[in-house]
Amino acid sequence: MVAQSNVIVTSIALGAVVAFLLGMIVYEVIILVQQGTADENYAVQKISELTRTDSVKDDFIVNEVNASKIRDNLRYLTSAPHVAGTAEQADTAQWVYDQWLQQGLVDVKTIPYEVLLSYPDENNPNRVRLVSKTDGSVVFESVFRQEPLYAPEEADPRVLHNYNAYSAAATVQGDLVYANYGREEDFAELARRGVDVTGKIVIAKYGKNFRGDKAKACQEHGALGLVLYNDPADYDPDGLEVYPDSVMMPSTATQMGSILGTKGDPQTPFYPAIESSFRYPEDECELPAIPCQPISYGDAYHILRAMEGDEAPASWQGGLNFTYHLGPTLASGLEVQVETHTTNRRATITNVIATIPQTAGDDPDRFVVVGNHRDAWMFGSVDPSSGTAVMMEISRVLMAYINETGWSPRRSIVFCSWDAEEFGLIGSTEWTQQFSKQLSDRAVAYLNIDQAFNGNYTFRAQASPLLRDIIYNATKEVPNPDPAEVAAGRTSVYDTWLHRLADLDDLTRPWIGNLASGSDYYSFQQVLGVPSMDMRYTDTRYGEPLYHTLYETFELVDELYDKGFLYHAATTAVAAKIVAAVASAPLLPYSYTFYPEFIRSAVVDLQQQYGDLIASHNCSLDLMTQAVDRFTQDVADFKDSLQNTDFSDLLVQRHVNDRLMLLEKAFLDPRGLPHRPDYLHVVTSPSAFDSYSGVALAGLHDALYALSAAPDDADLWRDFQEHLASVTHLVASAGDALQGRLW
Amino acid sequence: MVAQSNVIVTSIALGAVVAFLLGMIVYEVIILVQQGTADENYAVQKISELTRTDSVKDDFIVNEVNASKIRDNLRYLTSAPHVAGTAEQADTAQWVYDQWLQQGLVDVKTIPYEVLLSYPDENNPNRVRLVSKTDGSVVFESVFRQEPLYAPEEADPRVLHNYNAYSAAATVQGDLVYANYGREEDFAELARRGVDVTGKIVIAKYGKNFRGDKAKACQEHGALGLVLYNDPADYDPDGLEVYPDSVMMPSTATQMGSILGTKGDPQTPFYPAIESSFRYPEDECELPAIPCQPISYGDAYHILRAMEGDEAPASWQGGLNFTYHLGPTLASGLEVQVETHTTNRRATITNVIATIPQTAGDDPDRFVVVGNHRDAWMFGSVDPSSGTAVMMEISRVLMAYINETGWSPRRSIVFCSWDAEEFGLIGSTEWTQQFSKQLSDRAVAYLNIDQAFNGNYTFRAQASPLLRDIIYNATKEVPNPDPAEVAAGRTSVYDTWLHRLADLDDLTRPWIGNLASGSDYYSFQQVLGVPSMDMRYTDTRYGEPLYHTLYETFELVDELYDKGFLYHAATTAVAAKIVAAVASAPLLPYSYTFYPEFIRSAVVDLQQQYGDLIASHNCSLDLMTQAVDRFTQDVADFKDSLQNTDFSDLLVQRHVNDRLMLLEKAFLDPRGLPHRPDYLHVVTSPSAFDSYSGVALAGLHDALYALSAAPDDADLWRDFQEHLASVTHLVASAGDALQGRLW
Repeated sequence: MVAQSNVIVTSIALGAVVAFLLGMIVYEVIILVQQGTADENYAVQKISELTRTDSVKDDFIVNEVNASKIRDNLRYLTSAPHVAGTAEQADTAQWVYDQWLQQGLVDVKTIPYEVLLSYPDENNPNRVRLVSKTDGSVVFESVFRQEPLYAPEEADPRVLHNYNAYSAAATVQGDLVYANYGREEDFAELARRGVDVTGKIVIAKYGKNFRGDKAKACQEHGALGLVLYNDPADYDPDGLEVYPDSVMMPSTATQMGSILGTKGDPQTPFYPAIESSFRYPEDECELPAIPCQPISYGDAYHILRAMEGDEAPASWQGGLNFTYHLGPTLASGLEVQVETHTTNRRATITNVIATIPQTAGDDPDRFVVVGNHRDAWMFGSVDPSSGTAVMMEISRVLMAYINETGWSPRRSIVFCSWDAEEFGLIGSTEWTQQFSKQLSDRAVAYLNIDQAFNGNYTFRAQASPLLRDIIYNATKEVPNPDPAEVAAGRTSVYDTWLHRLADLDDLTRPWIGNLASGSDYYSFQQVLGVPSMDMRYTDTRYGEPLYHTLYETFELVDELYDKGFLYHAATTAVAAKIVAAVASAPLLPYSYTFYPEFIRSAVVDLQQQYGDLIASHNCSLDLMTQAVDRFTQDVADFKDSLQNTDFSDLLVQRHVNDRLMLLEKAFLDPRGLPHRPDYLHVVTSPSAFDSYSGVALAGLHDALYALSAAPDDADLWRDFQEHLASVTHLVASAGDALQGRLW
Repeated sequence: MVAQSNVIVTSIALGAVVAFLLGMIVYEVIILVQQGTADENYAVQKISELTRTDSVKDDFIVNEVNASKIRDNLRYLTSAPHVAGTAEQADTAQWVYDQWLQQGLVDVKTIPYEVLLSYPDENNPNRVRLVSKTDGSVVFESVFRQEPLYAPEEADPRVLHNYNAYSAAATVQGDLVYANYGREEDFAELARRGVDVTGKIVIAKYGKNFRGDKAKACQEHGALGLVLYNDPADYDPDGLEVYPDSVMMPSTATQMGSILGTKGDPQTPFYPAIESSFRYPEDECELPAIPCQPISYGDAYHILRAMEGDEAPASWQGGLNFTYHLGPTLASGLEVQVETHTTNRRATITNVIATIPQTAGDDPDRFVVVGNHRDAWMFGSVDPSSGTAVMMEISRVLMAYINETGWSPRRSIVFCSWDAEEFGLIGSTEWTQQFSKQLSDRAVAYLNIDQAFNGNYTFRAQASPLLRDIIYNATKEVPNPDPAEVAAGRTSVYDTWLHRLADLDDLTRPWIGNLASGSDYYSFQQVLGVPSMDMRYTDTRYGEPLYHTLYETFELVDELYDKGFLYHAATTAVAAKIVAAVASAPLLPYSYTFYPEFIRSAVVDLQQQYGDLIASHNCSLDLMTQAVDRFTQDVADFKDSLQNTDFSDLLVQRHVNDRLMLLEKAFLDPRGLPHRPDYLHVVTSPSAFDSYSGVALAGLHDALYALSAAPDDADLWRDFQEHLASVTHLVASAGDALQGRLW
């Protein structure tokens, strides 16, 4: 191939041509010699090498990660509340910008967007009250600001009042229904028990799904308003000591958070919020229509205790020391009043972007993207500042890797510090909307780090099936930060991960969750089809009880969670190794052979769960199964074809990589999932009923879930059949991406 | 770069490595020597060479084209009516298949789809009648089959009865309104004159826009039914002799044709009509709801002459020898009755696909696509068999080019023989829906040949701005088939084209129209963003009077239109040269510098035509103009950057080509034009009011056209502002495709 192209350059000086061709002939001969020596083992080994770089294996990265620098980063980042749209958050943008410049990254830029955010009215606090129906007197009133308990900064006057962003501003009053976690299934259970929420206020527990899904379900079921609280059964399940004596939730803590159901700036759906944008008037945006207010379990105690009506089912009972009732009436002729003054306001948010440019190899127009959001509800020592602290160390370590070892990444590494994730993934969504075409065409992977750390029990990851092996590999190479685990013979991050969080379908490997839409990977994975992942050190037993509360302070992490920042350091090393591997490997190290298996397993699940229902409508998953068979065969053929590929030709590497890059995109339906045009990935998009869930083929699952409750609904069958046709076609064709063939 | 990658292969035998590296070092040194010799003139010349191949310049292609083989092809293709879905059309698929196998193309395949077509009922002919209101007696009845006049095959019993495909089957009766060409503007004029078409039958002339647009407008204005005819003022404007003594239209001719408003199988919008597809029930498809029937001007004479009411405006008068009236009443208490039995039927259509594989260079996964539809309304000697005859000769000539000169295309050439274009671009739409991802990622251009020839006056092309220069170049290299023109000193196809059809904006170049959606290029250009073109030899003075009539016979072409098939041969040579150039040129020969100019001109038009209206709503095109400025600068920068590019590196060529391939896609809005999700290209998509028109930025034009009639319509302003924002963003970002930068 190379010799062919030389024909083109015959117009240059003859002497040069002769010498040039001589070089090329030597080159060609050598390639032929190589091919002659190739046997299958050689090829297998070769491919294995091409999907990794030796240099990633060495210990430089692990050794270079500096825990005290991560601590310093976190110290700075938690020095003030930094809610999106505030002056303090603008300061953090400048800090990140300066750090990256100092580290030697290039193209360091701040990219602002003007978007619709939501804030409490500091002069009119939101309240939840118990009010006497007879004389209107207030028997109880929730606090509007969380009480300082330990760290001095908790008293910072810049801490916002308790609120849920994008709540409607309204005062509503009425009976109260306890709706467990406020999920669809909980409302269904209430209906079965004859409890109607129409015209009533709902109180529901945080947890199990996205709070925005709770608000949406409430609104759809006709409730007047929603009160959210964290039950101690979920946030201090073992009745342990609480913060500041442990990381468990005290009775004064209140979880803040957005209830926006859409992603990105509400006024500019699908398009970036830039100067030329068209902005929908607020009253036409998909914004919550009812007031929603979070309270502490200390406050919830007074309200729940007053509830009458049937006893809540045993599984709905919580950790407060009385029996929970469903309502709707309250003792002593009381009603609940929710008064909110939360208002929307156009504000400027700022992403900061910087690049480590590729300096070697053949992919100048290929990028790995690393992203973390910077905005917090208050100090955000865990969410997201643990991630920001880690990301800043990843970039520093990789620059050191370059400067001190001569490492030359083949693909550029683009670092993104997102703003306004907490409001609805706004910074990342606007940016990916603005640069969708280049990202779609050129980005090879997206690594998201939201909370890099929220517990020291085990590593945890959610990822596209394509990134599975690269995560396994990196975690195997990073020493275990837990001395007790090392003493038990589990010397790597991987070992403890496997030990504590094995994949229940295959206990020989650690579990990796499917991606949903809970963080900034959403646009990359579910809209653009860029293989994405999210990773953290976590505690899968307790979660993070202080999530989104005032008590996510520096002290929480520094004194209680990760003394010495060893787990943060391990997370940094894992992430840096992943990034280095994706940026280095000549062949993209995608675990493409896992994809058919992943989909097949989801189809088997569907058949097991809904096979009878499907058959009852004369439908079947047979063509879907055939599609998976075809995809499986295509993947196997592609793998085989690599055995005979001459990878010494850089163009051939490029072609193979180009095919691999198409694979994730093969699952995008440009029309989106049924009634959800903002989710294009038919395999990995999350359920419509739970934005945090990770069920695969969620569009089909959702349709069948709905049908199982309403098997005669023709519209639902239509949705199912249409979507099944789309998924079947996409899966059947997915292997085309890997083949050179056109059809 | 090459040396870097060698690191990877160090695992092979040491001797081989040493020799290999030696070869590479020589190679690298030579590259450095080349770079040293480069000055700007050299670079300019080099780029110019890289976008063409020397071999394309020689005369092989011109000499190889064999007019008598084209004639033979046409003879076969016109031997039977070959309407999509019929046995005779299946025969033509087999013939094309056999020809391509015989010519040596590879991957020759037939690809069937089961789609909804529409046919007349041969036992219940469609009729248009004049009926007495008083006693129901029939005073006049249209013929249901065109009368044989000359060629023996005109009497073939397989010729279908006159009909418009997808007409509703119904019998309607009522007053009659003459609506000129049945365009939006004509209905607006009727309304101004107080003529209401609600509940009435409309008679309208063929021409000026797509007949489906006429039917849609009629339906939207509440008409009961539509009668279409060809007025002699349009189809024999100079009152010349008619067929079979000339190519002008006789009074017995009736234009058949589809009135389907959507593209592709009506039951599977956006998805391919394959086994796993979901099919909408017919009553939910966007099918015409009123009966529509074409008649000859011989029959129209009787009906139009009976019309009463106001005289039609002077510009609406036609070529029949009486004054046209608007109706709605008819003389002698007559009414018009339209009786149609046209019914929809699921049928199998067959595309035939074949490939000339690339054998040289560095783009094994890049394709040029050449397509022509094969189905005709009857014999279709012009539409489309002139194109099919030519396409079969293009593939033969290119195979000969390979076999006899050793030409090695760098990119594969995929030939597509489409079925059911006449029904609504069905074959090409289903295929592009099925293979959208590979086509979008890998196809570098689409050359459409519908009617290759429908007149010998001048060459004519419609094209993406990117393909302008390549068409100019090819036509300059093909000798003029017109001896009189040669005698006048215009020796090339280009010369007469420039002489007879200059671009009115720049008389130094021939005019190239914008693409619309009138043929199979629609999906490629307007949905996938693959730069597309359509070309033919034509008569811009008369059009093709016998279009879609029974009289499109072999004899029409062989005896009247193109004796010796010299114009067909010239068209073949132009097309083959275009294909060879796109398949050969190391750098894609896109005229990218023309794109900003093309868009700027459209923005200037908008400003001139609607500037006051835009300003009246406090809107402006300022940001749009800035977007064009930015795009212009990006294109200039890209062009400059090529001067310093080392094209001896094949990877660099690949990178530059990859950027160029993104450019057309930069203008796709995945959300589509306002209310038109089946048109994604915001620059080249056609007007909603005229599927044949070629106005650029039609989405903005349409919105402003509508607003100029209803300047207080808030929804229309919304559409305009939203779409303006999208177009502005896409144009401003379009240059990003050409830059290596991510943002």
